[in-house]
Amino acid sequence: MSTLLSREEFTAALNAIGERQYHDLHPFHKLLHGGELGKGQIQAWALNRFYYQVSIPRKDLTIMARMDDPALRRVWMQRVLDHDGLRQDGQPDESKVGGIERWLRLTDGLGLDRDYVRSLEGILPATRYAVDAYVHFVRDHSLLEAVASSLTELFAPAIHRERIAGFERYYAFANDSTLSYFRKRLDEAPRDVDFGLTYVLENARTGEQQQACIRALRFKTELLWAQLDALHHAYVTPGLIPPGAFVPDDRTPTRYSR
Amino acid sequence: MSTLLSREEFTAALNAIGERQYHDLHPFHKLLHGGELGKGQIQAWALNRFYYQVSIPRKDLTIMARMDDPALRRVWMQRVLDHDGLRQDGQPDESKVGGIERWLRLTDGLGLDRDYVRSLEGILPATRYAVDAYVHFVRDHSLLEAVASSLTELFAPAIHRERIAGFERYYAFANDSTLSYFRKRLDEAPRDVDFGLTYVLENARTGEQQQACIRALRFKTELLWAQLDALHHAYVTPGLIPPGAFVPDDRTPTRYSR
Repeated sequence: MSTLLSREEFTAALNAIGERQYHDLHPFHKLLHGGELGKGQIQAWALNRFYYQVSIPRKDLTIMARMDDPALRRVWMQRVLDHDGLRQDGQPDESKVGGIERWLRLTDGLGLDRDYVRSLEGILPATRYAVDAYVHFVRDHSLLEAVASSLTELFAPAIHRERIAGFERYYAFANDSTLSYFRKRLDEAPRDVDFGLTYVLENARTGEQQQACIRALRFKTELLWAQLDALHHAYVTPGLIPPGAFVPDDRTPTRYSR
Repeated sequence: MSTLLSREEFTAALNAIGERQYHDLHPFHKLLHGGELGKGQIQAWALNRFYYQVSIPRKDLTIMARMDDPALRRVWMQRVLDHDGLRQDGQPDESKVGGIERWLRLTDGLGLDRDYVRSLEGILPATRYAVDAYVHFVRDHSLLEAVASSLTELFAPAIHRERIAGFERYYAFANDSTLSYFRKRLDEAPRDVDFGLTYVLENARTGEQQQACIRALRFKTELLWAQLDALHHAYVTPGLIPPGAFVPDDRTPTRYSR
């Protein structure tokens, strides 16, 4: 029997997870944001992360397919539209370009072939497992836990700001096009998380439900962290790239700086 | 080993299913559209059919959650938006009211309480089984079969036209508000089915795949038909309403006419 936390205690417990284990603390991000990585390593990061980006709408659609309330689906739908976009690239309204397309502008800017990126052929198996675990989690757990797992958005604006600043300061590839994904998320994530946090605070009505939400958020931070572990192992230390995974042309350990 | 049909033969085979077993042929619809039903019977139809309406987005989201291609998701998304709407009732832009809300205007016009309709408490268990079978089908079968099962939209405009004409001619409840769902679908369904049919024709590349699509469409017509069988049994002949299901106040067998 878990004790029912007050609204403040529950919010603090959720935030504490971010402070302890959000992936902004991971050594790979420290290197990435601190200008310490070479071009090939950044390519590997962007390539692998593309699988996460392209899977987020599958995750949100899986959640939505379980919602009975059209009003709730209507709100959540915005997340899918944010990622998939309301139009293809090359059409007039730039603001309607989705997050997936914006991420491809980043991989373009890093010199990766779009067809190769989209094929997912070069991603690390561990990336696939971690991302798929997220989609499966929201399918197999309660709707409340599924929503709670999205609350890493509480911590996202800080990492996006750190990333934009680090990229602009250290890397030649940083420009309006390659940074467009992160800048857009600065607007979108706070709106999403306001809704998600309110939903969780209002719908976790027992101590057990609160603890399930805390576990869900912790699960989410773990799968983000695991993706960076795999990248670090393959492309930083010891640099053991699994057979079949992306091998950068540029394997110089030198910093990819301006 | 199934023979590969030509594009024309395959299209004809799909259309033949509609001609043989689409639910416009069901006796219940003949009574409904011919002005032969009483108010309570029409209430029962609209109440049960609401579960289908509210489940269609769950069905489409389940399909979308299985799509890897953002461009494909972007097209399919329109179906969910059509049903869930882009705004709540009472806000300015009438064109953005979703199909579910429009269906509630029909149940309003028939004198049913919205909370009761939304609660789903009065629907026939057989309605639930048939509708849920549709959601499960698109989850458990191939994406191609899931898309093929949507092709009853080939046959929908004809039944909507017949229904609008029959309602206007025979029933006192027919007005712009109660007919709004059907009129809107006259615009939406042809657009949806153009896409779905093209997708099926292009992606069913073997005789086996074509036969699977034909079976999927047949499955869909069966589940639509089964819903009317259940209504007919409970509310027409023999009129055996299962315990717990909706019991109309008005059980007069007289026609609910103008």
